[in-house]
Amino acid sequence: MAAEQKFKYFSVTYPQEYVAHVEINRADKMNAFHEEMWLEMRRVFDLLSPSPDVRVIVLSGAGSKAFTSGLDVKAASQGTLTSGSDSDSARQATTLRRHIVEFQDCISAIERCEKPVIAAIHGFALGLAVDIATAADVRLSAADTRFAVKEVDIGLAADIGTLSRLPKVVGNYGWVKDVALTARIFGAEEALRVGLVSGVYETKEKTLKAAFDLAALIASKSPVAVQGTKELLNWSRDHSVQDGLRYTGVWNSAALQTNDIQSAIFAQMQKKKPTFEKL
Amino acid sequence: MAAEQKFKYFSVTYPQEYVAHVEINRADKMNAFHEEMWLEMRRVFDLLSPSPDVRVIVLSGAGSKAFTSGLDVKAASQGTLTSGSDSDSARQATTLRRHIVEFQDCISAIERCEKPVIAAIHGFALGLAVDIATAADVRLSAADTRFAVKEVDIGLAADIGTLSRLPKVVGNYGWVKDVALTARIFGAEEALRVGLVSGVYETKEKTLKAAFDLAALIASKSPVAVQGTKELLNWSRDHSVQDGLRYTGVWNSAALQTNDIQSAIFAQMQKKKPTFEKL
Amino acid sequence: MAAEQKFKYFSVTYPQEYVAHVEINRADKMNAFHEEMWLEMRRVFDLLSPSPDVRVIVLSGAGSKAFTSGLDVKAASQGTLTSGSDSDSARQATTLRRHIVEFQDCISAIERCEKPVIAAIHGFALGLAVDIATAADVRLSAADTRFAVKEVDIGLAADIGTLSRLPKVVGNYGWVKDVALTARIFGAEEALRVGLVSGVYETKEKTLKAAFDLAALIASKSPVAVQGTKELLNWSRDHSVQDGLRYTGVWNSAALQTNDIQSAIFAQMQKKKPTFEKL
Amino acid sequence: MAAEQKFKYFSVTYPQEYVAHVEINRADKMNAFHEEMWLEMRRVFDLLSPSPDVRVIVLSGAGSKAFTSGLDVKAASQGTLTSGSDSDSARQATTLRRHIVEFQDCISAIERCEKPVIAAIHGFALGLAVDIATAADVRLSAADTRFAVKEVDIGLAADIGTLSRLPKVVGNYGWVKDVALTARIFGAEEALRVGLVSGVYETKEKTLKAAFDLAALIASKSPVAVQGTKELLNWSRDHSVQDGLRYTGVWNSAALQTNDIQSAIFAQMQKKKPTFEKL
Amino acid sequence: MAAEQKFKYFSVTYPQEYVAHVEINRADKMNAFHEEMWLEMRRVFDLLSPSPDVRVIVLSGAGSKAFTSGLDVKAASQGTLTSGSDSDSARQATTLRRHIVEFQDCISAIERCEKPVIAAIHGFALGLAVDIATAADVRLSAADTRFAVKEVDIGLAADIGTLSRLPKVVGNYGWVKDVALTARIFGAEEALRVGLVSGVYETKEKTLKAAFDLAALIASKSPVAVQGTKELLNWSRDHSVQDGLRYTGVWNSAALQTNDIQSAIFAQMQKKKPTFEKL
Amino acid sequence: MAAEQKFKYFSVTYPQEYVAHVEINRADKMNAFHEEMWLEMRRVFDLLSPSPDVRVIVLSGAGSKAFTSGLDVKAASQGTLTSGSDSDSARQATTLRRHIVEFQDCISAIERCEKPVIAAIHGFALGLAVDIATAADVRLSAADTRFAVKEVDIGLAADIGTLSRLPKVVGNYGWVKDVALTARIFGAEEALRVGLVSGVYETKEKTLKAAFDLAALIASKSPVAVQGTKELLNWSRDHSVQDGLRYTGVWNSAALQTNDIQSAIFAQMQKKKPTFEKL
Repeated sequence: MAAEQKFKYFSVTYPQEYVAHVEINRADKMNAFHEEMWLEMRRVFDLLSPSPDVRVIVLSGAGSKAFTSGLDVKAASQGTLTSGSDSDSARQATTLRRHIVEFQDCISAIERCEKPVIAAIHGFALGLAVDIATAADVRLSAADTRFAVKEVDIGLAADIGTLSRLPKVVGNYGWVKDVALTARIFGAEEALRVGLVSGVYETKEKTLKAAFDLAALIASKSPVAVQGTKELLNWSRDHSVQDGLRYTGVWNSAALQTNDIQSAIFAQMQKKKPTFEKL
Repeated sequence: MAAEQKFKYFSVTYPQEYVAHVEINRADKMNAFHEEMWLEMRRVFDLLSPSPDVRVIVLSGAGSKAFTSGLDVKAASQGTLTSGSDSDSARQATTLRRHIVEFQDCISAIERCEKPVIAAIHGFALGLAVDIATAADVRLSAADTRFAVKEVDIGLAADIGTLSRLPKVVGNYGWVKDVALTARIFGAEEALRVGLVSGVYETKEKTLKAAFDLAALIASKSPVAVQGTKELLNWSRDHSVQDGLRYTGVWNSAALQTNDIQSAIFAQMQKKKPTFEKL
Repeated sequence: MAAEQKFKYFSVTYPQEYVAHVEINRADKMNAFHEEMWLEMRRVFDLLSPSPDVRVIVLSGAGSKAFTSGLDVKAASQGTLTSGSDSDSARQATTLRRHIVEFQDCISAIERCEKPVIAAIHGFALGLAVDIATAADVRLSAADTRFAVKEVDIGLAADIGTLSRLPKVVGNYGWVKDVALTARIFGAEEALRVGLVSGVYETKEKTLKAAFDLAALIASKSPVAVQGTKELLNWSRDHSVQDGLRYTGVWNSAALQTNDIQSAIFAQMQKKKPTFEKL
Repeated sequence: MAAEQKFKYFSVTYPQEYVAHVEINRADKMNAFHEEMWLEMRRVFDLLSPSPDVRVIVLSGAGSKAFTSGLDVKAASQGTLTSGSDSDSARQATTLRRHIVEFQDCISAIERCEKPVIAAIHGFALGLAVDIATAADVRLSAADTRFAVKEVDIGLAADIGTLSRLPKVVGNYGWVKDVALTARIFGAEEALRVGLVSGVYETKEKTLKAAFDLAALIASKSPVAVQGTKELLNWSRDHSVQDGLRYTGVWNSAALQTNDIQSAIFAQMQKKKPTFEKL
Repeated sequence: MAAEQKFKYFSVTYPQEYVAHVEINRADKMNAFHEEMWLEMRRVFDLLSPSPDVRVIVLSGAGSKAFTSGLDVKAASQGTLTSGSDSDSARQATTLRRHIVEFQDCISAIERCEKPVIAAIHGFALGLAVDIATAADVRLSAADTRFAVKEVDIGLAADIGTLSRLPKVVGNYGWVKDVALTARIFGAEEALRVGLVSGVYETKEKTLKAAFDLAALIASKSPVAVQGTKELLNWSRDHSVQDGLRYTGVWNSAALQTNDIQSAIFAQMQKKKPTFEKL
Repeated sequence: MAAEQKFKYFSVTYPQEYVAHVEINRADKMNAFHEEMWLEMRRVFDLLSPSPDVRVIVLSGAGSKAFTSGLDVKAASQGTLTSGSDSDSARQATTLRRHIVEFQDCISAIERCEKPVIAAIHGFALGLAVDIATAADVRLSAADTRFAVKEVDIGLAADIGTLSRLPKVVGNYGWVKDVALTARIFGAEEALRVGLVSGVYETKEKTLKAAFDLAALIASKSPVAVQGTKELLNWSRDHSVQDGLRYTGVWNSAALQTNDIQSAIFAQMQKKKPTFEKL
C-alpha cells in the first residue's frame, strides 16, 4: 500500500487496497479554494495518476457543511483577479489568461488522472464545486447537497471547466443554460434527474459509503480494462464516432495483449475472484 | 427604454427594464410562417442583439392556438419550394440551396443573438416551431402544447435547424430519431422528461409569467456574465473540452476586467441589489 | 416484395410491405456471436441498405432468453484474440488492430444502413449486444431485458462501438461511466429513464409488436424524407451545428426535388394515405 | 448583361460576358479602406454572388500606386478602434469584438461569393490588402507589387483574415511566421515562389490582361462545374479528407444532373465551344 | 514470395522481394477507367494491404502513352452517370450518391492500403489520374507527363478525391484553384515545383527505375516503422497537432515493443543490413 | 535584463535586450539528447515563456558539428525504451505511452512558449532535431546542415512531433512522406526549397548572426502584437478558417486595448523607434 503522503489542504488516505481517498481539508472555511489549494490539488492527482497502488479515487470534502463552497472570494479579491494593475488592458488580459489557463489545468488534472475519480458530494457545492465535480468520472450526492453554477452572481462566466464540461456530462443544453444563466440553487434530486449525479444518499456518511463500495467494485476489475475505459470515453466525448472507433482500435491493439483477459475469464469459469497485476 | 419598433408580423415590446418580448403576430393563421416573416424575424433579432437596453428576450406566439403551426404550406407551395422551373435539376438545386441557407440563417439569428432568448411555447408547435425553439436558449411550455417534428409528413427531412440542434438540446439521439422519423405529436410532459423544455405550466398565461419571471431574474445579473455564459455554452457545444477551455480563457481575459465583479461582490456583502452598466 | 434470402445465422423475413425483420438466429447459444456471424451480419445489412423493397428494419434475437449474450467467449478464446503468436508485440498489435477494425466495421454496417433500424431487445443483452443496439436508430425493450456493458469483466475496454456510441445515444457521460466501469447489470426501466430505449413492453412478443407497429408507421412515410432524416441526424452527431446546417442544405437541395412532397401534401389535403415511389 | 450598378468606392463593370470587374476606387488615397468602404465591398460581392450574369470576378485597385495600402489609419484612429470610452475594459472588448466580427464578415464576402474571384494586384498591397487577397481564389501580381503583413508594425495582430487564411493559401507556416512577425516588405517574385500568387506580370496593365484572360477562360466553362469546384475546395480546406469526400458526394448527387455534362461532352466531340445555361 | 494473382485490368507482379508492382493494364485505351476497373483496383489494393510479402507498392500505367487518360467517358456515358431515369431528381440523386461513394471508396483503397504506394506517372495523366495519384504516398513523374484536373471541361466538379486530397498533397490552395478551375494541362516541371511530384525523370523507363529504387530502399526498412509512418502521417493530415501527438503516443505504445528496434540498432553498430520479420 | 539562469545541458544567455539565446550544450556528444536533457529543456522554455524580459528566443546547438544528432541511442537503450520488463505487453504499453507523452510535452514546450522561437541550425540535425526544429516558429540553416527524419532507420515511426508538425510546417505531404519513409539525408538547399527553413547561410556563425538580426527586429515590435500573432497562427493551423476568425476576434477584443497601437502609430508619424511596455 502506498505511503500516505502529506499535503497541506488535502488529506490523502488509502482506506482499502487500490482505493485512494482525497479529502478537501479546509472544513473551517467550508473547503473554499484559494490558489495555493488548487495548485496542491493538481499535485495530488498528478501523483496518484500513475501510481500502481491506486486504481480508483474517491474525492470528498471534509466537515459537515460543504463539498466546497467554491472560490474563496475574499482571498481571490486580494489576489490576481482584481489586482489594480497599472499596465494597459491588453497586458492585464495576458496576466488573467495565464492565470485562468493554469487554474483550468489544475482542475483538468482530475480528468487527466488515469484512474477513475468518484466525487462524493454533500452540503454546499457551489461554483468551483461544479467545475471540480464535472472533471470527475462519477458523482454521488447526499440528499442535502445544494448545487449552483454560481459564477454569474459574482459577475463572471464560469471559466474553470463548468461551461465546457457540464453540458457534456448531462447532455442537455437547455437545463445547463437555465442553471448557468440564473445561478439558482438546485438540489440532489434535480441533479439525479438530469444525470449530473448517479445516486443520492440520505447523509454524507451514506454517500461516502456508497462511493467506497463503488470504488471497491471498480478496483476489483482489471486495471487495464478500467483505465482504458476511462480514456476511451474521454476521447469519445471530444471526437466523432469514426475517430472514436479508430482510436479505440489502436488503443486495444496493445491493451488486448494483457494477461488480465485470461485471468478474468479463468476466474469466471472457476467462479473465483480474479487478481490482476499492478498497473 | 428602447423605442418600440414596429414590425409587420412581430410585436416587439418591453414589459420590464432590459426585457424584450417578441411575439409572433399572425394569430389568425396560427402564426404560420412564410418567407417575408422569417426575413423579418432575422431583422428583429439582429436589432435586439447589440441593443444596450435589452438583456433578455422572451419569444412567444400570439393568440390561444399556437406558438406556430410551422411553415405556411399553402404560401410555400406557391413559392420557391415547388416552383416548376425549366432549368435542369442542378440549377434547381442551386436555387433551393440558396433558399435553405438563407432560411436557416434567419432562424440562426436567434442563436446568434447575444442575449438569452426564452421561448414560451403553447398550443401547436409543429415543424418550424421546433427549429425556432431549439435555436432559443431556454424553453418553457404550457401544458397544452403539442409538439411535432412534422417534416417527414410532408415528404422532407427537417432542414432549418431541428436535425442539427434538437439532439444537442436534449442530448439523446434515440428519442430524437423516434420523433423525427415518425413525426408523431408529443406533449409538454414528454418534452419536460427528455429535457426539451425546462418547465411546464398550466396555461399559456402562466407560461408567459414564468418566462417573464425568469427573464427578470436573468436581467438582474451582470450582462457581461450572462452574455459570456451564453456565448461560451454555444461554443462549447460545437468544440472539444480542450478548445472550450482555451476559448473561455481568452474570452474571460477581457471579461474579467469588468467593474461588474466588484459591483456584484460589493452588493452581496451589502445584501443589496447590484446595478450594472449597460452593455 | 424482396426474395427471402437465406443466411446461416440470421433469419431475414418481410412481415409487412417495406419492413424487413432481421433475427439473430442462434438461440441455442443465446445468440452469442463469433466471427463468422458478425461477418454475415454485415452482409445482411449491406444487402438491405440499398434495397428498394425495404424501408425499415427490425432487429431482434431468436428464442426466449437473449437478444444476444454477447461475444461467444469460448469461440473467441480459440480464435484470434488470445492466439499465442510467436511474433513480437508490435506485430501482434497489427493483427489485433486489423481484427478490431473489421469487427467494428461489421457492427457499423447497421449505422451505415440507409434505412432506419429498430432494435427489439429482450432477455440478456450483454457486451456486444450494447455495441449492436447503439448502432441501431431506435431501441425498444422487453421488461425482462438485462443489459450490461460487460467488457471490463473479461479484462478489456469495450471496443466494437459501445464506448463511442453509447454516450452519444443517451447523452450522459456520468451514467455511461458508471455502467461501463462497473459492468453492472441494469434493467429496462433504467434503460428507459436514461434514454437508451424509447419504450418498455411487458414481454418479448409485445416488444416485437411495438417494433413492427413503429416500423409500419415509418414505412408509410416518404422514403426520401425518412432516409434523409437518418443520414442528417447521424451527420449532425459528429459535426458542429454550423456544419450540420450546411450539409443539410446541400442534401436537401436534391431531396426537395422529390415528387413525395406533392404526394404527401396532396394526400393530406385529401385525407388519404399517400403512396411513394420506391427508393 | 447585368446593369452596371453604382457604388461610391467601387467601380463595377462588365468588360466581357459573364465577367465582372470590381475596382477599388479611391486612388487618391491609395485605395486605403475605412469602414464605409468595407461595408460597401460586402454589398458588392453579396450582389454579384447569385447573379446569373456573372461567372467570374476580377478584383483590382484603381490608380497606379496601390492595390490598397490597407487600413486608412487616420480614419480608423478617429473611429471605433481607439475611441476613448468611459466604459470598463470588458464593455470596450464587446464593442471591439462586434466591430472585428463585422469587419471580418465584409472580407469573407469575397470567399463566400459563389463565383471565383481573381485578385489582380499591383503597387502597395499592405495589411488589409493581404486579408482581401487571401479571401480571393486566385492571385496574379504585377512585378512592382510590395506586399506586407503590416499589422505588427502598428501594434496589433492581423485580425481580418490574414492569420487564418494566408497559411492555408500558401501551405507553409514557417514563411508565414517570418513575414507576419517581422512585417517586412516582400515582392512579387517571393510571393510567386511561396505560392501566394500564381503569376507575375511586367506591369499593372499586363496583370489585368492576364486576369481577364483567365477570367474569360473560366467563364467559358460550365458554371455548375466551376462553382461546385470553388465550393468543394473551400469546404475541403476546413475538413478532413473523409468529410471532404462525403460532402462532395452529396453535392454532386444534384450537380451531376446538369445538362452541362452532355453539352460539354457533345461540344468536345464536335470540337465546338459549348454554351451553358445561366446559373 | 506471393503468388502472382491474376486480374483482368491490372497486372500485379513482384519484381523484388517485398515490392509489388501494380500496372494499370489497358494500354490500348490509354488505361482509361470504367466501373469494372475501379472495382477491380480496390480488390487489388485490399489484397496487398495486409499481405506479409508486400512492403511497398509501385503503381504505373501500361504502354507508352498514358498513366491513365482518366474516366472512359464513352463507357460512362452508356452507364450510370447519364442514364435517363424515370424517377424524380431526389431518387436519381440517391443513385448518383451511392455510385460516387463507391467510386471514391475504390480510389481510397490506395490511401487505406497499409503499405506505401509510389505512383510512377508518365504520358497523359488526366482527371481520374490525379484522383489516383493523390491517393498514393509518393509520386514520381516522367518528363513527358501531361497532368490536368480535367473535370470542369466535362461539366463537373472532380468528385473522386482530387478536390479533397490535391490541396493537402501540395499545400497550396491558390495553385489548386488555378488548375482545377481552368482544367489546363500542366507538365512535370510544374508538378515538381509545386510539390505534386517528388522527382522528374527523362523517360517512363527511368521513372519506373527510380520508383523501384525508392521502393527497394523503403522495403529494406523495418515494416513496423514504415507502416506506422504512413498511418501516422495520414492521421496527422486530418487532425490537429495535439490529436496527432496523442494518437502517435498510443500507436507507438505497441509499436515500440517490436524487435525491429534492436535489430536495426544492432545492424547499424555492425554496419550490416538488418533483416526484419514479416508483417 | 534577466538574470542568467544556470542549467546543466543548456546555456541561456541574453545577448541583446529582450532576446534570449538558448544553446544546447553537450557539444562533445553532438548535442545528443537523453531524458534528463529534454526534461531540462522544458524547464528552460517554461521559464522564458512568461518572462517580461524576453521577447524572442534563438535556439541553437553548441559546437561545430551538430544542432543535435538526435536521441542518444546509447542512453536510450539503457533506459525505458528497451527495458526488458516482466509485465505483460499491455502494461509495457502503458509505461511507454506515459514516457512518450511526457517526451512530447517537453518538445511542445517550445511551441507553447509565448515568445517566438527561431531555430538556428547547423551540422547534423537528425531525428529529434527535426521534432525540435518544427516546434520552433522560424528556422534558419547553415549551408552544411544535414537533416534527416531518421527514425525509421532505428525501427520506429517518429513520435515526438515530426509526423504531426513537419507536414504542417512545409505544407507538402508528398515530400514529407518521401523523407520520412526513406530516412534519407537532405541538405539546407532542399530544406529551403520546400520551406522547412526560411534562409540558408554560409556558416554556423552567419546563421546565428542572421538569427540574432531577425530576433532583434522582432524584439523591436510591440510584444502584444508579436505574441498575439504567434498564438493566432498556431490556433489557425489546427482549426477551420471560421474558428480562426472567431478566436482572433475574441483575442483582439482585449489586445486592441493596448497602448502599443498608439505608441506604434505615433512613433511612425514621428519617424522614431517606438518603445513598448514589458509583457
